[in-house]
Amino acid sequence: MGEEKYEVDEIIKELVETGKGVKEILKEMKNVSELMVDLAYSAILFNNDELAEEVKELEEEMNKLRYQIEIRTMVAARDPKDAGKLEGILRIAAAAERMSNAADSMADIVLRDIGLHPVVRDALKEAEEVVDRVIIGKDSKLAKKTVEDLRKNAKYGMDIISIKRGKNWIFKVDDSEKINAGDTLIVSGFKENVKALREAN
Amino acid sequence: MGEEKYEVDEIIKELVETGKGVKEILKEMKNVSELMVDLAYSAILFNNDELAEEVKELEEEMNKLRYQIEIRTMVAARDPKDAGKLEGILRIAAAAERMSNAADSMADIVLRDIGLHPVVRDALKEAEEVVDRVIIGKDSKLAKKTVEDLRKNAKYGMDIISIKRGKNWIFKVDDSEKINAGDTLIVSGFKENVKALREAN
Repeated sequence: MGEEKYEVDEIIKELVETGKGVKEILKEMKNVSELMVDLAYSAILFNNDELAEEVKELEEEMNKLRYQIEIRTMVAARDPKDAGKLEGILRIAAAAERMSNAADSMADIVLRDIGLHPVVRDALKEAEEVVDRVIIGKDSKLAKKTVEDLRKNAKYGMDIISIKRGKNWIFKVDDSEKINAGDTLIVSGFKENVKALREAN
Repeated sequence: MGEEKYEVDEIIKELVETGKGVKEILKEMKNVSELMVDLAYSAILFNNDELAEEVKELEEEMNKLRYQIEIRTMVAARDPKDAGKLEGILRIAAAAERMSNAADSMADIVLRDIGLHPVVRDALKEAEEVVDRVIIGKDSKLAKKTVEDLRKNAKYGMDIISIKRGKNWIFKVDDSEKINAGDTLIVSGFKENVKALREAN
């Protein structure tokens, strides 16, 4: 209970400090939902537990966003007529959470290892392109390189879908973005390139 | 009833003819889910009924895919142990449908015009980049142009997220793809470019 109370305080504090409005929160929800869907299916298609774990973290992020959008909506409603017009936003938030829960169940299927094997796994061996998670080590020579360096490197050229830095996600990754030690990269590319990236890390 | 029976026959016929396996169907589900999520949120953010309608069509596509993956899974199960291992696939299919239903409820909120206005709509006016649907007219001068022509044209340069051609969707659009009369384009770009594209159509 105590811990939950603390979290709620933190969420409200963040909301007040950043001054995020409904529109900003909706945009963040869009980013979180899109990444969750991508990662949930990729976790299944590549039988990848690490991607499934990221989906579970994003689910928590979505819970936070749902809470924030509800607070914003409640505060904006000044009378019943006004509240009626705002009600759609609460419904959107509920739908976003259902979407996120569905992605979360996909992740659970991967993590619990139930019944994905005979038909899906055989097909996996053929896959040339994969989606994967790479955590940049603290002495990694990849740290301080830019996203563009990684993208264009002949040995491990690949697409960087998103970066998790501390508690924050960067959803639209800029070419000029510098990679830090400790960053979690969600990458997509040819199997051998992802392997080379892991070895260089 | 009669019509539904016919649809089911069609779905099975397509499955047999294309020889699609579980992996292929999962990949299609991934594409459909990703586009649904993108369009559902975009429909909300830009208060755009046309995008919401596309979400509703994609929901039907998802129903078809769910049916196909269930059929493939059932046929693959030869004994109870085997079936146990395949059960996860049915759960994935169920989760995919829940995801798709959630996107569908977002579309409904837009189409029924409930309560999106005071907070969201004000923010809309500031939006410089939009997502929109453009249906290529039968005598349009845009027909026979390639995707690259549209993408790089100074007047209406924009991103083409996907193309619906007849009953089929092209999810990963190639630069060399020729645009046909009757195609439905889902585009994203600056407001004035989308407007110029509409005028050129």
